[in-house]
Amino acid sequence: MSFNTFGHMFRVTTWGESHGPALGATVDGCPPGVPLTEADIQPWLDKRRPGQNKFMTQRVEPDQVRILSGVYEGKTTGTPIQLMIENTDQRSKDYGDIVQKFRPGHADISYHQKYGLRDPRGGGRSSARETAARVAAGGVARAALAQLLPGLSITGYMVQMGPHAIDRNRFDWDQISENPFWVPDAVAATHWADYLDDLRKNHNSVGAVIEVTARGMVPGLGAPIYAKLDTDLAAAMMSINAVKGVEIGEGMAAASLTGVENADEIRMGPNGPEFLTNHAGGILGGISTGQDVVVRFSVKPTSSILTPRQTVTMTGEEVDLITKGRHDPCVGIRAVPVGEAMMACVLLDHLLLDRGQTGAVRGQIG
Amino acid sequence: MSFNTFGHMFRVTTWGESHGPALGATVDGCPPGVPLTEADIQPWLDKRRPGQNKFMTQRVEPDQVRILSGVYEGKTTGTPIQLMIENTDQRSKDYGDIVQKFRPGHADISYHQKYGLRDPRGGGRSSARETAARVAAGGVARAALAQLLPGLSITGYMVQMGPHAIDRNRFDWDQISENPFWVPDAVAATHWADYLDDLRKNHNSVGAVIEVTARGMVPGLGAPIYAKLDTDLAAAMMSINAVKGVEIGEGMAAASLTGVENADEIRMGPNGPEFLTNHAGGILGGISTGQDVVVRFSVKPTSSILTPRQTVTMTGEEVDLITKGRHDPCVGIRAVPVGEAMMACVLLDHLLLDRGQTGAVRGQIG
Amino acid sequence: MSFNTFGHMFRVTTWGESHGPALGATVDGCPPGVPLTEADIQPWLDKRRPGQNKFMTQRVEPDQVRILSGVYEGKTTGTPIQLMIENTDQRSKDYGDIVQKFRPGHADISYHQKYGLRDPRGGGRSSARETAARVAAGGVARAALAQLLPGLSITGYMVQMGPHAIDRNRFDWDQISENPFWVPDAVAATHWADYLDDLRKNHNSVGAVIEVTARGMVPGLGAPIYAKLDTDLAAAMMSINAVKGVEIGEGMAAASLTGVENADEIRMGPNGPEFLTNHAGGILGGISTGQDVVVRFSVKPTSSILTPRQTVTMTGEEVDLITKGRHDPCVGIRAVPVGEAMMACVLLDHLLLDRGQTGAVRGQIG
Amino acid sequence: MSFNTFGHMFRVTTWGESHGPALGATVDGCPPGVPLTEADIQPWLDKRRPGQNKFMTQRVEPDQVRILSGVYEGKTTGTPIQLMIENTDQRSKDYGDIVQKFRPGHADISYHQKYGLRDPRGGGRSSARETAARVAAGGVARAALAQLLPGLSITGYMVQMGPHAIDRNRFDWDQISENPFWVPDAVAATHWADYLDDLRKNHNSVGAVIEVTARGMVPGLGAPIYAKLDTDLAAAMMSINAVKGVEIGEGMAAASLTGVENADEIRMGPNGPEFLTNHAGGILGGISTGQDVVVRFSVKPTSSILTPRQTVTMTGEEVDLITKGRHDPCVGIRAVPVGEAMMACVLLDHLLLDRGQTGAVRGQIG
Repeated sequence: MSFNTFGHMFRVTTWGESHGPALGATVDGCPPGVPLTEADIQPWLDKRRPGQNKFMTQRVEPDQVRILSGVYEGKTTGTPIQLMIENTDQRSKDYGDIVQKFRPGHADISYHQKYGLRDPRGGGRSSARETAARVAAGGVARAALAQLLPGLSITGYMVQMGPHAIDRNRFDWDQISENPFWVPDAVAATHWADYLDDLRKNHNSVGAVIEVTARGMVPGLGAPIYAKLDTDLAAAMMSINAVKGVEIGEGMAAASLTGVENADEIRMGPNGPEFLTNHAGGILGGISTGQDVVVRFSVKPTSSILTPRQTVTMTGEEVDLITKGRHDPCVGIRAVPVGEAMMACVLLDHLLLDRGQTGAVRGQIG
Repeated sequence: MSFNTFGHMFRVTTWGESHGPALGATVDGCPPGVPLTEADIQPWLDKRRPGQNKFMTQRVEPDQVRILSGVYEGKTTGTPIQLMIENTDQRSKDYGDIVQKFRPGHADISYHQKYGLRDPRGGGRSSARETAARVAAGGVARAALAQLLPGLSITGYMVQMGPHAIDRNRFDWDQISENPFWVPDAVAATHWADYLDDLRKNHNSVGAVIEVTARGMVPGLGAPIYAKLDTDLAAAMMSINAVKGVEIGEGMAAASLTGVENADEIRMGPNGPEFLTNHAGGILGGISTGQDVVVRFSVKPTSSILTPRQTVTMTGEEVDLITKGRHDPCVGIRAVPVGEAMMACVLLDHLLLDRGQTGAVRGQIG
Repeated sequence: MSFNTFGHMFRVTTWGESHGPALGATVDGCPPGVPLTEADIQPWLDKRRPGQNKFMTQRVEPDQVRILSGVYEGKTTGTPIQLMIENTDQRSKDYGDIVQKFRPGHADISYHQKYGLRDPRGGGRSSARETAARVAAGGVARAALAQLLPGLSITGYMVQMGPHAIDRNRFDWDQISENPFWVPDAVAATHWADYLDDLRKNHNSVGAVIEVTARGMVPGLGAPIYAKLDTDLAAAMMSINAVKGVEIGEGMAAASLTGVENADEIRMGPNGPEFLTNHAGGILGGISTGQDVVVRFSVKPTSSILTPRQTVTMTGEEVDLITKGRHDPCVGIRAVPVGEAMMACVLLDHLLLDRGQTGAVRGQIG
Repeated sequence: MSFNTFGHMFRVTTWGESHGPALGATVDGCPPGVPLTEADIQPWLDKRRPGQNKFMTQRVEPDQVRILSGVYEGKTTGTPIQLMIENTDQRSKDYGDIVQKFRPGHADISYHQKYGLRDPRGGGRSSARETAARVAAGGVARAALAQLLPGLSITGYMVQMGPHAIDRNRFDWDQISENPFWVPDAVAATHWADYLDDLRKNHNSVGAVIEVTARGMVPGLGAPIYAKLDTDLAAAMMSINAVKGVEIGEGMAAASLTGVENADEIRMGPNGPEFLTNHAGGILGGISTGQDVVVRFSVKPTSSILTPRQTVTMTGEEVDLITKGRHDPCVGIRAVPVGEAMMACVLLDHLLLDRGQTGAVRGQIG
């Protein structure tokens, strides 16, 4: 089954292909009365837009979003919001070779096997261009969250490129917007630039790890058992192109901890309980605790590279393939705003769900 | 919103608490005509059952499953299958202390904050006892898969306990059932026994990493964009109690690979395309390729330990807490059959979905 | 696809067959903190229970409901509530003849054609016994509504039996509980008793029309376009066994009205706008107006009758069939509490949905 | 909650307002490989298009559909299909008066109360213009059905206008396309033209009953209990603007029948069982029998009329309202292709669902 919708109450349905006339998202379930214009959404799209520097695909897309429905006189009406982005720079001829040959590591072959046909232009529906629609939807979610949970901030950043992780001691929130990698470590930014430039020139690509943190959270979002906040975040992040792993808080490293180490001990603060550590990443039993929600995900290296790789054709011929076209040497860079958008959508969804079931009344402590 | 259902076409709704009269699963959407008796499900529950050795909680539960509906004369009828497991050994008095005190690292506090009340007996709904219902549902999924995809086998095993990973060179499928840890490395099994015994005696607990592999796959399961096979597997595994990270194929390590390394090159074999490596874990673009599907997840250490930890009470008093009761020193052990069950449910769900949309006709290669 | 769940946020999954060991409902999404015991649910089941007088099937089922989960110390916890009703009086031998022969007008033949097999005992899953589970779930919904919307009352009653409609001029709410037909017209009650007795003695059965009215409504429940309040009510009622038509307000008769007649004119009352008529049945554009919500549905006559009807067997033989067993001459009588239960579930569901999206803030008039 | 999606596997999400820049539908879950161009969809839109004769609103909309995604080289790819229709003739000034005044019988007031604001231009999201998106989606469903179930035909027609029903003895399928009312009775067509012309000149409007019949059905579509074929058809039809009642087969009249009359007796025909009558409307126990599926629904009269009606304003003032603008005197006429589209979508959805669960294998008889 094709299934292009996510969310329970705040539901986003994306549509469109890399080289079709347009792509977009239908956003359903947004609260009414939220101030919203195209100018509120555009900055997030600009952050993800290709062609901004040499570390991104050189495809030039303005990625201008249009709101076609659901907003009247600058406010959401509570009815579905259609967000459309027209494609303008489709050089489909670049893809001539891959109509017949399957790129190793790419969805070409699995789409062909499943559907018996596929749109090969730019990867069709499997292209990371689809994530523009998510970012637009995330802009709507952020606008609603700004009204419903004003203290919340959602920030994504890169914490590892290839084998090179940041030094957490140099972590500086203000650095994130100061370099092309959205990395909070200024030293890493410099090293990574050289590293990635080399890879690019060698017709190679590389993976990355992105972290997204939500600060200013409230407790009580998420729910047992199959709409846990971490479950929905894991699904949201894993659905992003090229993602192969998702972690909450300690993530895979939680395996190495003992129970004594892992316990996030609790003391009373001026405004209620406070945790001394945050191994849990802000979520216990699938429900937010009010601590920062911390999610990480890995992005595999771009499979479309200029180095020849062995593959087969649709007729079963064994060939070598070099993928021309314009590709990101580290697609993880552009995954940063996408991860933020998914976090925004999931948090808003759970805020509405919680308000529906419990009326957003919180159990008291102290 | 409470949401206790997973799956699109093969849908499982679990219910019940640790210390209530019973728990179970309603399995809806199973194909008709599948041979099914309680004896087909019971072995999987026995594998997860507590009290089998000193590395498990000493709670003794027979975990006998009863089929209350959906089966007639030994075959599924296509209508909902109710699976019920009665609780027999509820020592609720063990939990007297935690009615007022929140266990650090446990869902006690988040449930209280969300709902304003909670069933504290054994963790109520947040207890890992809920996973018995998943394992029962997984037994139904396995029975259906045995009919629809006879070559498929699903095997879970532990690949890391605390900081101690297995040696992949010693990987032996036959070892998995030969030790209490479901570990495919006989040497590791010995070391881990000593390690865990020490931890247990020191009133501590530890995390683990579980891997689940599906062999004998077909291509074409999964679909863009928000019902990708990896998306649904990530959600399924993250929804298991205490899981903090999920990986497909290379997982988080994909970040460290270059595009040249990560490309799973393709050659023609006697029955169609074959991949030379499986960094992708059997899934490209959210759709299975026919290679083994490989999923890993981390399980954090049990938060209920006999070592005192700082916490607060419902009235806001700061206290130290020792958690009595009967708890697993490494809850990851019992997560192995749970991970298998989730894999079985997800694969059957996608098999039905694919048959619905495409008629299970595959695109040819060669 | 088998699909045995209804509701968006307040979700009910029913399971079980007429002659299996038990049947029930899993109720998910109930608000926490709602006072609930088995005694709150049982009266509604007693109202639907068979064998209470000569106008009902003589099967004797105590229909005792057990709450197996989701309630702690007399209050809902916000987690799934399992409601189980054991079957006690299954005389499966009565059904020997219909294992091979398809009852005309019954689901025997369609189940066989779809699934290739079926549970013939008492109609299996297609039996109206399934509605006991709905009534139990409706009891939970009523308990939550009593807390969230205290002024609301939901009342079902019969307005037509066979060709005999009530006289609306004699409508008396207090009469409804005074006769075996839940009819608000005392004169009709007397006539219908004779009419139905004759039919029963003549080995025949008859249809009916049930009306369910919700008084004390609030505006704002329901939403465009595919979760309109009337859409969900229509689905809820049409899903009841034997229902063939559903009407809101004027219903099918709306076709005969002109726009001048049909306009429910509005004046200002002391507490806001008031409508001079209620042709709309309390719903405009899929959203409640605050007027009474009025739904009607028709129930076809029981197909299991003692008069011989022509049919075929599984092997294709042409035969005549008399259906023994214990059947209701007018199954519409027992559909009254079922219709009430469905109304309660739908209204609570929409109350929670509305609170989630809008915060239950109402647009002012005046 | 706003919820603008219907269908289980073949899912349609509509978006857009009467006077926004565009409206459309996202169609997800369509089988791959279905031949589809805009020319396959346009004829159905043309049938629904306004301004074709004096019995329709004089708004002139070309209603040209554009396929923005999901189709490659004339075939569906199995990914979401975006169908967009631009609005061209929005005379919003016509609506100046109803910004402040609520039209009696219209959704103006309920939208305002729920959302606190609304798009008043042409009724915004509550306008029947939304049904253009359904008709476009229905065109996609018809294309897929043409491939999967070639013998199927779906035909809608009007059977009653105001109090005037057709004479079933004059029923002629070929007449349906020969008159502006899609009525299968040539005599009625003539009478209705005069009747409606009078009403229109008198600034009035009137309701209607539409019937939609699917011929060439297969058994086995639909399923217990809450995705019955009749349940989903009832919801689909009730979700259409202005619909107040839905009937399957005998519908409300089933109440008047006895069990002896209502039994659709069965005999063996050359290709399996045959029914002597079709009181059931082709559905038993929620599952199709292979007989014609027959659905009827009533459409209330247009509430926007030129005759003054009493109402109130947003500030609570009591006023009289005449609704200018361009409105249909009998909106039921244009509901005919909408009903057909909903039938097509529901049948395709159930065809895919059935294929998913059962593999579309049918139980044999004889």
